Amino acid sequence: MKKKILLSINAGSSSVKVSVYEVEYGQAPTQIAEAQVSGLTSPPASLKYVRDGRTVVKSKEVEDQVDNQRDAFSLLLETLIDDGDLPQIKSKEDVGIVCHRIVHGGDYTKPQLISNETYQHLENLNDLAPLHNANSLGIVQLCIRALPTATNVACFDSQFHSTIPEHIRTYPINPDIAKSNHLRKYGFHGISYAFITRSAAEFLGKKPEELNLIALHLGSGASACAIKAGKSWDTSMGLTPVAGLPGATRSGSVDPSLVFHYASDVGKLSPASTKDLHISRAEEILNKKSGWKALTGTTDFGKITSAASSPGHPDHKAMKLAFDLFVDRICGFIGSYYVSLRGQVDALVFAGGIGEKSAQLRAAVVDQISCLGFEIDGEFNDKNELEKVVEEVGKATGGRDRPRVLVVQTDEQFEMARACAEDAEFW
Amino acid sequence: MKKKILLSINAGSSSVKVSVYEVEYGQAPTQIAEAQVSGLTSPPASLKYVRDGRTVVKSKEVEDQVDNQRDAFSLLLETLIDDGDLPQIKSKEDVGIVCHRIVHGGDYTKPQLISNETYQHLENLNDLAPLHNANSLGIVQLCIRALPTATNVACFDSQFHSTIPEHIRTYPINPDIAKSNHLRKYGFHGISYAFITRSAAEFLGKKPEELNLIALHLGSGASACAIKAGKSWDTSMGLTPVAGLPGATRSGSVDPSLVFHYASDVGKLSPASTKDLHISRAEEILNKKSGWKALTGTTDFGKITSAASSPGHPDHKAMKLAFDLFVDRICGFIGSYYVSLRGQVDALVFAGGIGEKSAQLRAAVVDQISCLGFEIDGEFNDKNELEKVVEEVGKATGGRDRPRVLVVQTDEQFEMARACAEDAEFW
Repeated sequence: MKKKILLSINAGSSSVKVSVYEVEYGQAPTQIAEAQVSGLTSPPASLKYVRDGRTVVKSKEVEDQVDNQRDAFSLLLETLIDDGDLPQIKSKEDVGIVCHRIVHGGDYTKPQLISNETYQHLENLNDLAPLHNANSLGIVQLCIRALPTATNVACFDSQFHSTIPEHIRTYPINPDIAKSNHLRKYGFHGISYAFITRSAAEFLGKKPEELNLIALHLGSGASACAIKAGKSWDTSMGLTPVAGLPGATRSGSVDPSLVFHYASDVGKLSPASTKDLHISRAEEILNKKSGWKALTGTTDFGKITSAASSPGHPDHKAMKLAFDLFVDRICGFIGSYYVSLRGQVDALVFAGGIGEKSAQLRAAVVDQISCLGFEIDGEFNDKNELEKVVEEVGKATGGRDRPRVLVVQTDEQFEMARACAEDAEFW
Repeated sequence: MKKKILLSINAGSSSVKVSVYEVEYGQAPTQIAEAQVSGLTSPPASLKYVRDGRTVVKSKEVEDQVDNQRDAFSLLLETLIDDGDLPQIKSKEDVGIVCHRIVHGGDYTKPQLISNETYQHLENLNDLAPLHNANSLGIVQLCIRALPTATNVACFDSQFHSTIPEHIRTYPINPDIAKSNHLRKYGFHGISYAFITRSAAEFLGKKPEELNLIALHLGSGASACAIKAGKSWDTSMGLTPVAGLPGATRSGSVDPSLVFHYASDVGKLSPASTKDLHISRAEEILNKKSGWKALTGTTDFGKITSAASSPGHPDHKAMKLAFDLFVDRICGFIGSYYVSLRGQVDALVFAGGIGEKSAQLRAAVVDQISCLGFEIDGEFNDKNELEKVVEEVGKATGGRDRPRVLVVQTDEQFEMARACAEDAEFW
């Protein structure tokens, strides 16, 4: 089969990333370009464009009307087509496959070809995750119209977790209502966990099916995952991404009755709702008005870490509270998953923006869990530039059975491209 | 100071227990009688009365109009006064101290003398825990009027947890709203955890301040507690008792947005509300319509355990799911608290009706956490009658540092009486 050009699209709450690959059926994808619009929630947004590993556009302010994910994607597509030095995409017809990261995939266990039928199903899933799926669906609609010759594929953040056993994914609630309303633990960040699993297996010289991990994807959204024999066994997010660890603006798990004591009318629509996007006041509070932004005023965890270790900083107390709270909740999940995996853990993996960058957070977490045999290597941990996809920051010596501590630079766009390259259905 | 007669009152959702003690300031209380009305939610209720360890009334059906906690307490008080063989209580004036178990004590860190002022404060706390405090408050009101010469004392299930550090008790939400609306982790079952801590310390020959425990109070309400140096360090219940482990009819921790997907109008008052007791539909679903009753149809965990181990049982699948789910959630907290206590754990303690009675649950839990060094002793664990207050069911041999596994027959009424006997304020 001949090579195809694949666009891997990752739409977040304030950004859209597109990675461009040359793919061949059954082969690892080769990245040829990467473009990103960020700052959609604080216009003017800015464009970044990298071709063949070289930065073509570093940070260009884009026109004010680019303030949503669809328009951002249009701009990115234009940028790629207009680039004379990217001969692989001369026109829209050159794009063979477009894969879309969709947060909530309901019961889907693998990537889906987007037909009119599955698109309808994707829209229905929107009810479970209005805050999370809507941005992606706008781009899917656009691609169906703007790239009529391309194959559109949906990759779900939940699909990796379809292996979570029943007694772990079930909520102790009325089973009939759970079934009819689709209420169970789904879990998210699964595209990242799939990448982490393969990369850690390769690094440790094990087959994925021999590998047990406790993986942490820590970014403005944060979660933990117990991976048993290469498959998801438990994860901290639940029916929606709000459960589990706190995030930049998410509460994580709190008393399920808390929100009713937080404000009145929490079941009503938030003023932030639109015609297409129905958000309750409760969802807005728990997803957008909580987390470390609520505790400290900043979403930037780097600032929090720095102020937490500076007793003279004017906001030291609040920053330290947010830092200590995050470490406590992370370590709680590590202890819980260590037991759930019966102590058979090959490695603890840090990933995501904070997991990759915050040596201080890694050190604090690993110190707290030293009773389980984890140990950090100060020198490796403190290195500012971790340059490879997988690096070891734990002390691997000191015992054959000691679990390792790794940092993985996760790459969701690559993982989606890889999944598409391996699936005969899309070729 | 002379001896006083003390009534220790424990009002649950469908029962009222009164234990009668002779107490002397600074001395351990001596129980002289115990009376209980149970089955209030499935009338006719029944009365049980034990004097000096001998059963006087085994199970007497009481009149139909006894269908609430106040009337049940009136009947119990009458029973005690009318008993010619209980010379210590000939009239109401013989009662010196009445202590009341109150679930939610807000910021109170010790038992409170109930004056008109504190009663008002107790009523305000009702907003945080309408389902849990209202039953007790009805009895407090009655005692203030019916026993005018007695000292009324409120003992709070939350007070033991006032030592939980800030980074653990804080929710990652807007701190101003958290402060004004009193939103934090309070924790409950604290009277039981105080009893457990003292009893386990005595059994292990340690001072409470040298003792670290992971304690499980498992009954129709279930929780876990990390006890560090004899004080509460973390616990699974939160702002209200609904957070943490599932119970007979409670959901425990679920995605905080779940209830909005369960039913519409969850913020509205439930039809079960009364003039004095405002219960939202959400609180009703999470507290009364969930838990293992929802999964299996029974609140009787003994039935669930038995069916879970009988593959031929018609409800085997649902029963096993409920059993496995409960074990998974319990072990999750144990792993989490093991890490939070940095592996310094003297003992795991099982308490509460299920903790005391279910050898099968204890075996399943300890098997799952064997990677932390816990081990059950089959012979001791399977004994039907654990007769002492503290019994060891774990293998204490096999290593000096191996944490022990104990069963404690907790006694909340005794613990309240003890607290009153020790507090000069009530004498």
